[in-house]
Amino acid sequence: MGQTLTEKILSDHLVEGDLTPGEEIGIEIDQVLMQDTTGTMVWLQFEALDLDEAQTELAAQYCDHQTYQFDFKNTDDHRFLRSAAGTYGAHFSRPGNGICHNVHKENFAAPGKTLLGSDSHTPTPGGLGQLAIGAGGLDIAVAMGGGAYYVEMPEVVNVRLEGELPEWSSAKDVILEMLRRETVKGGVGKVFEYTGPGAESLSVPERTTITNMGTELGATSSLFETDEKTKDYLERQGRGDEYVELTADDDAEYADEIVIDLDDLEPLIACPSMPDKVVPVREVAGEKVEQVLVGSCTNGGYEDILPAAKMFEGREVAKHLEMIVAPGSKQAGEILARQGWTAEMMAAGVNVSEATCGPCIGIGHVPASDSISLRTFNRNFEGRSGIEDDNVYLCSPQVAAAAALKGEIIDPRDLADELGDLDAPGVELPEKYDGSKTDLIYAEDAIDDELIKGPNIGEVPLQDPLGSNISGETLLKMEDNITTDHIIPATSDILKFRSNIERLSDFTLSRVDETFAQRAKDAGTGVLVAGENYGQGSSREHAAMCPMYLGIEAVLAQSFARIHKANLFNFGIVPLAIDEETYEKIEQGDDVEIVDDVADAVESGQEEFTIRVNDDWEATANLHASERERRILTAGGKLPLTKQQAEGGAAPADD
Amino acid sequence: MGQTLTEKILSDHLVEGDLTPGEEIGIEIDQVLMQDTTGTMVWLQFEALDLDEAQTELAAQYCDHQTYQFDFKNTDDHRFLRSAAGTYGAHFSRPGNGICHNVHKENFAAPGKTLLGSDSHTPTPGGLGQLAIGAGGLDIAVAMGGGAYYVEMPEVVNVRLEGELPEWSSAKDVILEMLRRETVKGGVGKVFEYTGPGAESLSVPERTTITNMGTELGATSSLFETDEKTKDYLERQGRGDEYVELTADDDAEYADEIVIDLDDLEPLIACPSMPDKVVPVREVAGEKVEQVLVGSCTNGGYEDILPAAKMFEGREVAKHLEMIVAPGSKQAGEILARQGWTAEMMAAGVNVSEATCGPCIGIGHVPASDSISLRTFNRNFEGRSGIEDDNVYLCSPQVAAAAALKGEIIDPRDLADELGDLDAPGVELPEKYDGSKTDLIYAEDAIDDELIKGPNIGEVPLQDPLGSNISGETLLKMEDNITTDHIIPATSDILKFRSNIERLSDFTLSRVDETFAQRAKDAGTGVLVAGENYGQGSSREHAAMCPMYLGIEAVLAQSFARIHKANLFNFGIVPLAIDEETYEKIEQGDDVEIVDDVADAVESGQEEFTIRVNDDWEATANLHASERERRILTAGGKLPLTKQQAEGGAAPADD
Repeated sequence: MGQTLTEKILSDHLVEGDLTPGEEIGIEIDQVLMQDTTGTMVWLQFEALDLDEAQTELAAQYCDHQTYQFDFKNTDDHRFLRSAAGTYGAHFSRPGNGICHNVHKENFAAPGKTLLGSDSHTPTPGGLGQLAIGAGGLDIAVAMGGGAYYVEMPEVVNVRLEGELPEWSSAKDVILEMLRRETVKGGVGKVFEYTGPGAESLSVPERTTITNMGTELGATSSLFETDEKTKDYLERQGRGDEYVELTADDDAEYADEIVIDLDDLEPLIACPSMPDKVVPVREVAGEKVEQVLVGSCTNGGYEDILPAAKMFEGREVAKHLEMIVAPGSKQAGEILARQGWTAEMMAAGVNVSEATCGPCIGIGHVPASDSISLRTFNRNFEGRSGIEDDNVYLCSPQVAAAAALKGEIIDPRDLADELGDLDAPGVELPEKYDGSKTDLIYAEDAIDDELIKGPNIGEVPLQDPLGSNISGETLLKMEDNITTDHIIPATSDILKFRSNIERLSDFTLSRVDETFAQRAKDAGTGVLVAGENYGQGSSREHAAMCPMYLGIEAVLAQSFARIHKANLFNFGIVPLAIDEETYEKIEQGDDVEIVDDVADAVESGQEEFTIRVNDDWEATANLHASERERRILTAGGKLPLTKQQAEGGAAPADD
Repeated sequence: MGQTLTEKILSDHLVEGDLTPGEEIGIEIDQVLMQDTTGTMVWLQFEALDLDEAQTELAAQYCDHQTYQFDFKNTDDHRFLRSAAGTYGAHFSRPGNGICHNVHKENFAAPGKTLLGSDSHTPTPGGLGQLAIGAGGLDIAVAMGGGAYYVEMPEVVNVRLEGELPEWSSAKDVILEMLRRETVKGGVGKVFEYTGPGAESLSVPERTTITNMGTELGATSSLFETDEKTKDYLERQGRGDEYVELTADDDAEYADEIVIDLDDLEPLIACPSMPDKVVPVREVAGEKVEQVLVGSCTNGGYEDILPAAKMFEGREVAKHLEMIVAPGSKQAGEILARQGWTAEMMAAGVNVSEATCGPCIGIGHVPASDSISLRTFNRNFEGRSGIEDDNVYLCSPQVAAAAALKGEIIDPRDLADELGDLDAPGVELPEKYDGSKTDLIYAEDAIDDELIKGPNIGEVPLQDPLGSNISGETLLKMEDNITTDHIIPATSDILKFRSNIERLSDFTLSRVDETFAQRAKDAGTGVLVAGENYGQGSSREHAAMCPMYLGIEAVLAQSFARIHKANLFNFGIVPLAIDEETYEKIEQGDDVEIVDDVADAVESGQEEFTIRVNDDWEATANLHASERERRILTAGGKLPLTKQQAEGGAAPADD
């Protein structure tokens, strides 16, 4: 039987398990990437593990989230990251050089290789046939130390693209259509492989828009086969020699197939406040917009900004709104500047920002109160923009530019009709991506050989091994789809403590309940209860570390998002699945006790646990965990386990 | 007897008093400008005064300090400012369009006119022969309502510039030389008029660098005569018809004369942490630099960035540092982009920011801990960069670029020797300043006709009329040169409350003593004691409003900075001058009582007041105040007085 492309790459990297969906496999990691808000903890953990040098073929540290450096803590973090990259042999990308996914795509993404990244949008280079997965920082640290990465073997789903995109529709509309159909939970435990003539018709930058935002489906990763377009892209990036032809076998067997006819796609938009609340743009036309942003790792490339720039040329954005373009990388910004587009955009009333993730996580350009913001980003979770009760819509650059010109949401086709002289902007790749590499400090040119820690750079907290008893108050009962932005918000006043768990933990779940952190500290221990898809969103392991630091021992949820569940294991918190009835019955403030001897039960492979609530009623909770995950939990987390193993002489690879 | 240029312009605008240095005069204001962190309060006061429309020839509202919009409160402030400008007939400059002084210079600065601005660097257009003065927001609101502006008639000092600037020296070195000689107090009560062949040799942008930073001398304003260069500059800005020839009379009599021979000027630098700690660059050469910033209202023009860009072309900044260029205006940024310099700078490793004041007041790009930052800005007060114990040096763009290339402080002449192929960069003005005006919403194109207030936009606090008794604890004893950055810091976590005095006052003097605000609230009333030059720095009236809000009734200082003293009057706080002996003797915590009947004494023109300390010893304190200032104090501040007058039928002009 033939193999899917996912299976082929996984086979090449398999060190443990077999490729049965749902079973845990261990794979070798070729490349790792870190960004600034998760990277500091990766390196602190790497240091705590007493590891010497990055063992992966390539490690790259980017500074992209907090590039505005609002606080010396941000700037200190960047200096620490540079010193860590230098000390341990990673490449370092300076703040201002761009978003990790964009810069990695331009410089390092390689077909057929595995990439593990401490950011949930790590799957971006799937558009070039690289199998890329987002994970918590500790997983990155261990992989960088030469350890395997463990993940449930995903189901591989074929997304067959037919036809060609019509004028005014774009790759963003492909992934918005996927979200419309499959929802933010539709990709859990899956890799989406995009195939068919429609896939072939898309350029690499278009493909990476789709693979990037596959994360919002909850997918483990997304992949495109490689072809002439991949080769051509790599050649234009000066990396033609890294091209590898990669296709699924003709007789590959997919778990499922989804067919999208690109010809049928019209401009789409995700409404507040979830990326799957997708409707045709026409259905929300007329809504007044106060802010429009083009950029982010989804739509911040040269090829994303160019169509907007063409639409702006010789025109003016509406007077009542603010239009900001933040290129995804300096390469994109530099080429746009060199070609004159930057000046054209400025003339049209665009505020051209430095390359940054910034506003996507509420860092800068926070919308005004009671206003609509239109963004080409990938997430619009409530409050993520930096203000509660926000109204953020997600769309393509074409739709964003149309709204900026009109001052309200409008289907760009209707705007073209109105204006008469507005043509659908074509996008040619630049002959050569000739941006400079000045801001990329290669490992071999490192200028640091020891860590530079400012006063805010803290210690990695360690937890004791799992005990026999878990019992405590239900400190918080939450709804479905709680995101890591709820658990540890990424706004700048909080982000600056990412290297300092003691201070950061004060903000845990503050967006759900401001009193939580103090109540948890007072209680000393406790459990959390949540609905479906708990922990969706970013890969930040801080969303597990901080609850651990506050004494949370178990999370009872109807279901967990993949990366966050792994992070819970990694930090010794027991993730227990409960059914809807139990969820409905349990109340905040209830005392919950796990009746079983927890340490014994976890270690022995027990799946069903009995929880006793208020000494009054009982229910069953399930632990879905591999043997490896059980070993991690038992040890009190991955860091203590890896340290134990290292002291016992085992390499981290055995974890 | 002939007149100085200052006297000529003042004569043309005089509505009260005569031109005797030290005496108060009232002058008519032709133009006003506001920026975003002071402007919200100006408009709230304008609204509180029940005024209809700006009565000045021109009013312009800029958004420049908090352009990164870290918080919805910033964005709400900008929206409120747009609505206020629209409602009351002012021009509005969108965030990203640049710094007020730069955009005003480009678009509105007019020889011979008077300009009052709610920013201390308002004197910038003095380089075009406009008499421009910084003031507190309430003074702006009243002037905009048609009222006169009152100020002590300054002494006029002639600064005679001989010779021509040598290669590698710049206008920045002229003003640094002035600061080296005259110190940050040397300009108090003075206007500096720059004359002589050296002045004629300077371009308008060079002249405005000097007039801008004249503020750091404590000067009321700085002026250049107009000439062919002024005319030429205005023509290139498309405003040649606004040129007026203005010179001092040949027999003008100056209070003093300072002679600087430009030929002798070498590259200079102001060391941490005061703009007058000036030494030749060579004396501090070799200091490792971690951050270099080019921009600000002093050196953020096209002509300032161009020499740095030329030096960067084909080179790379040192790997261990971060190099940021923030253009002072979009016009500058757009022309640089159009000419290809933006791309060249990016290629060299420069992070090109949007046009903003930002980092100059600790908003973004805060230096790392224990590091040196080199900036082309005008102020390096300790902590202003956003981190306590900072090490900020001030210099020209040439010196900044040299340091960025070398990685350490270096005299650019020495760098040129080292590199062999580095020529001193010449600067030609662009043939036409062809930046777009898209981000300038002219009053006649306004889109708002009512105020839009977000939830953080508060009320203007009002104070009762002055009472007979002032007594209370000395809540804080401070040293010399306390700046408005000490009184109300401008960092982003605090700046967002500029429209909300209740919340903002919690941060009053927090940089001197974190417990102050709470202690003042607990005490309910009290006095402040300080050394020389209390309240130097920015024009922010919040530095008087917040102490007023906290119950401070008097400030006893050895001397006061001009704008801050006016702000104290405006908010009903009695500024009393004490001698050094009294200053030394009085301690924090001491009970201070003004023995006189304060209201009677202030009203009757009494100058000497007796203060009684701890019911134990007495000293004399002096109130230097005009009759007008006494009326303001008696009423409890300018706002209650103006309201009284308006209710009594008098126009604000009578104030």
